[in-house]
Amino acid sequence: MSDAPARVIAVDTHDIRFPTSRELDGSDAMNPDPDYSAAYVVLRTDAADGLEGHGFTFTIGRGNDVQVAAIDALRGHVLGRDVEELCADPGSLFRDLIGDSQLRWLGPEKGVMHMAIGAVVNAAWDLAARRAGKPLWRLLADAEPEWLVRQIDFRYITDALTPEEALDLLRRGRAGAEERRARLLERGFPAYTTSPGWLGYDDDKLGRLAARAVADGFRQIKLKVGADLDDDIRRCRVARAVVGPEIRLAIDANQRWNVDEAIRWTNALAEFGPYWIEEPTSPDDVLGHAAVRRAVAPVKVATGEHVQNRIVFKQMLQAGALDIVQIDAARVGGVNENLAILLLAAKFGVPVCPHAGGVGLCELVQHLSMFDYLAVSGSTEDRVIEYVDHLHEHFVTPVVIRDGHYTAPTAPGFSAALLPESLARYTFPGGTYWAADPDTRKDEAA
Amino acid sequence: MSDAPARVIAVDTHDIRFPTSRELDGSDAMNPDPDYSAAYVVLRTDAADGLEGHGFTFTIGRGNDVQVAAIDALRGHVLGRDVEELCADPGSLFRDLIGDSQLRWLGPEKGVMHMAIGAVVNAAWDLAARRAGKPLWRLLADAEPEWLVRQIDFRYITDALTPEEALDLLRRGRAGAEERRARLLERGFPAYTTSPGWLGYDDDKLGRLAARAVADGFRQIKLKVGADLDDDIRRCRVARAVVGPEIRLAIDANQRWNVDEAIRWTNALAEFGPYWIEEPTSPDDVLGHAAVRRAVAPVKVATGEHVQNRIVFKQMLQAGALDIVQIDAARVGGVNENLAILLLAAKFGVPVCPHAGGVGLCELVQHLSMFDYLAVSGSTEDRVIEYVDHLHEHFVTPVVIRDGHYTAPTAPGFSAALLPESLARYTFPGGTYWAADPDTRKDEAA
Repeated sequence: MSDAPARVIAVDTHDIRFPTSRELDGSDAMNPDPDYSAAYVVLRTDAADGLEGHGFTFTIGRGNDVQVAAIDALRGHVLGRDVEELCADPGSLFRDLIGDSQLRWLGPEKGVMHMAIGAVVNAAWDLAARRAGKPLWRLLADAEPEWLVRQIDFRYITDALTPEEALDLLRRGRAGAEERRARLLERGFPAYTTSPGWLGYDDDKLGRLAARAVADGFRQIKLKVGADLDDDIRRCRVARAVVGPEIRLAIDANQRWNVDEAIRWTNALAEFGPYWIEEPTSPDDVLGHAAVRRAVAPVKVATGEHVQNRIVFKQMLQAGALDIVQIDAARVGGVNENLAILLLAAKFGVPVCPHAGGVGLCELVQHLSMFDYLAVSGSTEDRVIEYVDHLHEHFVTPVVIRDGHYTAPTAPGFSAALLPESLARYTFPGGTYWAADPDTRKDEAA
Repeated sequence: MSDAPARVIAVDTHDIRFPTSRELDGSDAMNPDPDYSAAYVVLRTDAADGLEGHGFTFTIGRGNDVQVAAIDALRGHVLGRDVEELCADPGSLFRDLIGDSQLRWLGPEKGVMHMAIGAVVNAAWDLAARRAGKPLWRLLADAEPEWLVRQIDFRYITDALTPEEALDLLRRGRAGAEERRARLLERGFPAYTTSPGWLGYDDDKLGRLAARAVADGFRQIKLKVGADLDDDIRRCRVARAVVGPEIRLAIDANQRWNVDEAIRWTNALAEFGPYWIEEPTSPDDVLGHAAVRRAVAPVKVATGEHVQNRIVFKQMLQAGALDIVQIDAARVGGVNENLAILLLAAKFGVPVCPHAGGVGLCELVQHLSMFDYLAVSGSTEDRVIEYVDHLHEHFVTPVVIRDGHYTAPTAPGFSAALLPESLARYTFPGGTYWAADPDTRKDEAA
């Protein structure tokens, strides 16, 4: 080895698609036939340790190629970076990426370009955690509050959270962290499951899976709603009858409704005691969510999986639009922006219950909730991470669920890496699965 | 010719970039060195008339290739469409594009994917207007209110504007339309100019161009601000001294500030009597704009060129966050979504003063303001279209400015078509300009 500093020497991208639409896994009122996909990125370096950083954007099929193109457009900001410096301050990469004045026009800080930034930033954090020999949750929880604050871009949020307030929250968050870490390692972090509730499942399958969820130790399940009210009433009745009165039953409309419709529909399901209504309307509609929340209480309002950035989360909190903040590990600008969102939620006293599922979202977001528990909120009360039992077998270090809890990962990194054989099989359209599929050519033309 | 209906047979895309960064044209506090670009799309048909539909997304350089990829991802929704049906109801294409459940995940309705939809939808309107033998403003102004309402997607806006209210606005908007049309054809539509005020220009150039703007008949000019307060004070003083007290002086921060900073900075420039402060903070920040507006009155607050869709405009209006709605022809989902935004603005009694400039934004948006005047707002009072004197020479039917007014276009279509020789010269990276440029290879690697 020479004495030259190690550099990032490659930014490899992959268009990975799983044919989930064939089983109606993941079907809801807005997404009838998703093919869960990942625009996947690997940062390679010339360091002696041979470690890589992995990250991805989750999509549901068509357009995954656009997402890959967006990650490719960031390559120039990553290639040649000093690996030590990058891992010591992933925020420097984050700031360069969101600060590219030409690319910024394509957002700013939203949609395809912002998700691409999230994938690359998360890959840098994966690399940093691997090099530190720690799972990401632990790297974050061990970090100094001052360093964490420097990882955050406070632009556009200082009217709700200043760097000084963030520092104060993080300093106070340390009290009792050791004890919480022991409890986390012993018990894990509470999960809830959406596996029973996909809209494409019939009542029998719904009831069977709901019963199994309770038997497996989950204290909350979630049902997709919003396509047909009579169906929703029937499905909620089935689920409530199976799980009994104690288990929390969340419902999720996936943005299907206008504001007035959201209010009427949610109230029509109130007799089944839903714990929260998720994505009642457009994720862009701060004032709409606030109006829904006022009208459906005591049913809580939850949203976030499609909330584009910290600026919209800030307003959701300022407007009293949310009871539950649902961060997503791969929608916003990566770990750095999620640190801001976790601290905003803490400032407003709103619990964070992450969105997960898809491809690898469970693997990623568990780290952020565990950090939140150890270093920010200090509590797991009313906090649950979504769990969906799909596609974990493709990951090198898949999540481990035990008695309705996420077990704290111990492997270094961000749990983002797909197995090489899964990459080879599900690369679109050239992987062995798709190349052998008679419909692929048709899909490609569509 | 066979009797088979004419179809869309090709969706051609082009990555077009102009090297504007070399002159600092277009420089502002957030965009120091834009290369004005267009992700350009041409719909070709097998109709006997040989007419095409042209559209584009405007970008400022890097990432234009991502925008092209996004347009390419829509091809399957356009190819094979019946041309008569498409032109009779462009809204059917708009609904299919925003309704693609897999592509929707990449927004929804924001950023790269939504701008791509806007480009394709606008190309369809260009085709429809050409086939009708009318400039787009006239096609829209001649249309029945019922038909126009059917062109709008009311999802997520019915809490502010119902289809019935929209119909009522359009029916009332017809009164006096004949007289207004005569006046439009005679006088044109008022413009203001940003050409003097780019941040990269020195005081001499600013003063010289401001004087020329007044001599050319403009009653409003605009200055970029936000990089350095002392510079801004000096530049505003120069401009005000040159134009005198009667000419409106708008200032534009291009999202540079946090909320409190926006308030302080704007108030520090109040002595120069700015007419509006544009983009004081993030375009996503509805509540932030409302706070700024309360604190800087009587200076008006204007925004919109980066407002992602009708849902955010709706909230800006509901929250009393804006005095001026700045639509952009190529940021949202095309003509259909802009119809919704024009009607929302009318419902709330807020004047529309479009963003333009860039590449071809003047050419496009003039049609929407002229339609607004003829059929919705019925007034040009306090309404001006931005005008920037760049790159018009590349268009087949460039805007014509006379005595500070946009002359009503008479050529059929949406004025979107670039000259074939400009396409050949500025295609990136293979066009004759870029292929001959010694820096192109470096730019490409970056």
